[in-house]
Amino acid sequence: MSARIVIIGGVAAGPKAAARARRVAPDAEITIIERGGLISYAGCGMPFYLSGEVQKYNHLFETTYGVIRDEEFFWREKGCRVLTRTEAKSIDRAKKEVHVENLENGSKYAIPYDKLVLATGASPFVPPIEGLDMKGVYKLNHPEDALQIKEYLGDTEGGEAVVIGAGLIGLEAADALMKLHMFCSVVEMQNQVLPGMLDEDMAGLLAKKLSDQGIEFYLGTRVLKLEGDEKGGVASVVTDKGTIDAEMVIVAVGVRPNVELARQAEINIGETGAISVNEYLQTSDPDIYALGDCAETTHRLSGKKVFLPMATYANRQGRVAGDNLAGGKSVFGGVLGTAVLHTMGFNIGRTGLGEKQARDLGYKVITAVNHAFDRTHYHPHHGLVLMKLVTEDGTGRLLGAQALGLGDAVKRIDVVATAISTGATVDQLAEADLGYAPPYATPIDLAAHTANIVRNKVAGLARTVTTAELKEKMDRGDDMVILDVRTEPQYKMRHLKDDRVKLVVLGDLREKITEIPRDKEIIVICALGTRSYEALRTLKGAGYEKVKFMEGGLQAWPYEL
Amino acid sequence: MSARIVIIGGVAAGPKAAARARRVAPDAEITIIERGGLISYAGCGMPFYLSGEVQKYNHLFETTYGVIRDEEFFWREKGCRVLTRTEAKSIDRAKKEVHVENLENGSKYAIPYDKLVLATGASPFVPPIEGLDMKGVYKLNHPEDALQIKEYLGDTEGGEAVVIGAGLIGLEAADALMKLHMFCSVVEMQNQVLPGMLDEDMAGLLAKKLSDQGIEFYLGTRVLKLEGDEKGGVASVVTDKGTIDAEMVIVAVGVRPNVELARQAEINIGETGAISVNEYLQTSDPDIYALGDCAETTHRLSGKKVFLPMATYANRQGRVAGDNLAGGKSVFGGVLGTAVLHTMGFNIGRTGLGEKQARDLGYKVITAVNHAFDRTHYHPHHGLVLMKLVTEDGTGRLLGAQALGLGDAVKRIDVVATAISTGATVDQLAEADLGYAPPYATPIDLAAHTANIVRNKVAGLARTVTTAELKEKMDRGDDMVILDVRTEPQYKMRHLKDDRVKLVVLGDLREKITEIPRDKEIIVICALGTRSYEALRTLKGAGYEKVKFMEGGLQAWPYEL
Repeated sequence: MSARIVIIGGVAAGPKAAARARRVAPDAEITIIERGGLISYAGCGMPFYLSGEVQKYNHLFETTYGVIRDEEFFWREKGCRVLTRTEAKSIDRAKKEVHVENLENGSKYAIPYDKLVLATGASPFVPPIEGLDMKGVYKLNHPEDALQIKEYLGDTEGGEAVVIGAGLIGLEAADALMKLHMFCSVVEMQNQVLPGMLDEDMAGLLAKKLSDQGIEFYLGTRVLKLEGDEKGGVASVVTDKGTIDAEMVIVAVGVRPNVELARQAEINIGETGAISVNEYLQTSDPDIYALGDCAETTHRLSGKKVFLPMATYANRQGRVAGDNLAGGKSVFGGVLGTAVLHTMGFNIGRTGLGEKQARDLGYKVITAVNHAFDRTHYHPHHGLVLMKLVTEDGTGRLLGAQALGLGDAVKRIDVVATAISTGATVDQLAEADLGYAPPYATPIDLAAHTANIVRNKVAGLARTVTTAELKEKMDRGDDMVILDVRTEPQYKMRHLKDDRVKLVVLGDLREKITEIPRDKEIIVICALGTRSYEALRTLKGAGYEKVKFMEGGLQAWPYEL
Repeated sequence: MSARIVIIGGVAAGPKAAARARRVAPDAEITIIERGGLISYAGCGMPFYLSGEVQKYNHLFETTYGVIRDEEFFWREKGCRVLTRTEAKSIDRAKKEVHVENLENGSKYAIPYDKLVLATGASPFVPPIEGLDMKGVYKLNHPEDALQIKEYLGDTEGGEAVVIGAGLIGLEAADALMKLHMFCSVVEMQNQVLPGMLDEDMAGLLAKKLSDQGIEFYLGTRVLKLEGDEKGGVASVVTDKGTIDAEMVIVAVGVRPNVELARQAEINIGETGAISVNEYLQTSDPDIYALGDCAETTHRLSGKKVFLPMATYANRQGRVAGDNLAGGKSVFGGVLGTAVLHTMGFNIGRTGLGEKQARDLGYKVITAVNHAFDRTHYHPHHGLVLMKLVTEDGTGRLLGAQALGLGDAVKRIDVVATAISTGATVDQLAEADLGYAPPYATPIDLAAHTANIVRNKVAGLARTVTTAELKEKMDRGDDMVILDVRTEPQYKMRHLKDDRVKLVVLGDLREKITEIPRDKEIIVICALGTRSYEALRTLKGAGYEKVKFMEGGLQAWPYEL
């Protein structure tokens, strides 16, 4: 008898596991059970459908060759049976049966399995806020959410929207709303945008840049309740710091894994709250697999269990599970927590451990922050990227990277992610033979350049302060010279308003060096951090000892100027 | 006494070495000698200046903050003395002196050195063709070449141009000329575009795609002579296959390292014809370094010496040499031959060994060719990328990659280059935690997907033919079924004109499977290679044995349809 594979969940991980299992085990009898009416949809595409960049709803369900991925498609092209609007109510592990209910007609029956897959996904967390049931309040988790928002907005252009949550989905939603010419505010309980994704310094600059584009951020702000108008529609968001008008609200405060079915069946739930699995993606019951947004996974660097519900993991785990359902022994090797997003023209990404994460885990770290162009600055399409590299002191091992900017930050995240995946050191990254031509990179690519800054620090050539450290020193009233080495026009355009600032254009530094006091601490600043490093070396060469430069330059200054 | 560092050559490697040495050794006395009048210019930017994408000539000489990199700049900002229009005539290694001539006033003198750097670059190869001295015949190696071409063209739009050489510079020049609305032909002695960079199969498809954009290629064609008009201007290019009208000719048939000075000083020249150096970039005289386009380097995979004059190596070697000039012991770890370019909207790149190169070196290889979108196909900016991966049979080690398309091929080349730099295997590439969001990638990125195809081959799940192999089988009259599994509209639009072609839409395959003969070889084809793999698995599952699918699909078919 051919193996009976039953998969609960028909969005990403489930269908991928089914398709892979089918290709490896042609005889298997494969059934996908899906509670909803839609399957195999592009969940990540919803913000782009909302914004109008994806023009048709169907595009979220189509193959590259224009066939809708529905029950018929899975049956005819993949040889997998799909039962939509069918809910798995319980699992009888002793009898190896799933008890299901047809949500259309209420009929209940059991489906026997040899191997079972839990791909039950995650559900948006609903915060305990009064008024979430009002008209005009949405989430953005299912294609129907996007449809409803578009229907609600109708042909309206403009209006005021509030997004609750400045995570990845929140910022993608804000981007979509801005593209629909809405005035958009984002309220976030934590003190930064993209908490959990970016370090505070990187997030600070990003928030400033996005604010400059028109998004209003309310960080460290708690939503108390939503208030409505006389028609029952939402009218304002009341926070602990004031009230924001809102014709529309999108709640995007994260998701929780759907583990009820597993819990009822006494399958182990991990400490992250998601289903616990081994490297073969087997749960505590070896005939039951779990993958995608309902399962936890292992961070490759920390070795710790993490809950990171990402579409790419769902798909990659689907391939692994598909192999193993078909009798194989494929391994899912864990994750680095790579995450990327595009919002308001900015490319943003991270991989591996953040600086704070790494320090909290006990690593001794050396970081470098580099502000540089993604391609030669004479090429018309060049854009800035702020990149931060986190490395382990002593071993030089790469631990993580974060990058953001109008330039191609994401390519560099992929490069570092690849390097970390292979256990590379900062030297190996610096020496990677990356492609150079003016439309793509600089002769020494900014990722390698950032690695070189780490090496310069290790070699004792470079000593730096962060923007936050300089701000703190300024506020504290430290006795120092803030030596600005930019050109005069650049200085006149904008500069730090502080008595301790002294302008000496880099080209004049050697002849004016006697003007710079030898007994004071000197912090050199410029636009991006290149000239200030050059100046540091000149000062060091002239015997100055207490010299540092500010990483990232004034372009990375997240405070008022 | 402080060390006297003398550097011959002021374009890329020389100034970089000088700047790095200065930062590391503040006391050193650093002199750069340059024969020409310009220094530290963006050689790679010339095609973009020619096309008008770089608008001003000065942009090729400016820092990011708008200061021209001239003698004054190097003196004031870098503390390095630059002697332009000064030619190094000979080296007296015993006395440690460089004998120079001031080309402006003819004066001759000696410059003593403790450490000497040869960064003498390379010069365009001048093929033995009659008529190269006519008006309208140019090379594209020095900023003044670009200036002269622009002056010659004046405000003319249109006209006929011939580029001799279909290498990297040749194709960038063709792109620039097409942007100037010229009708552009490219003549290449070898049978493919980008010889030495791409395998023949990849180059074949690229030539077809570029031809579709209007470039006329004459491959396997030898230029015999140029003919002029009565005014002494070039009028036509005579080849062994006919004559091509030309109002302008750009000769781009490669460069040769400038090694005369080294040869006269009895410094070892390597078998590649470039100056031989060790990992510290020292020549056979340990006080003399060589780097950039005049020096040979080591291929990291083959271990063989190679001559690869690339700007990125010049810069990276400059950093290493700068360290060592200052007393350090930095190592240049060799190259993978990564090269990328943009032409006619196409992104093109390669890294590591090509398939032919690898086989010639004795590797047993497994390759995969994958045709896929660079981001989710519903995202409006998606583009196709054809990617080829070369791996070592048995070990699974990554050996090389090539990619091209309207999609972001170069990002994937950087990812594979990083992976190869760390000695990664195809499994590690497949499992790299690359960033996914719809504007950047597919849930399983195409680089990882290509790695998965290799794994499918190793596991015996996938068996393939290349487009060239299918063409050969067709021409030879093999008894087979060419099973096209695309949709009917796709088939009607265009398909292989061959009696052996049979259309069975993928979704109908299971029910129509009896129509497919069991005794014949079956080659499955589709648009990109995804559905045909699916069909192969279905046929295999139904007991068919002699089934292969065509890698890359019909979109990669380089022949007439």
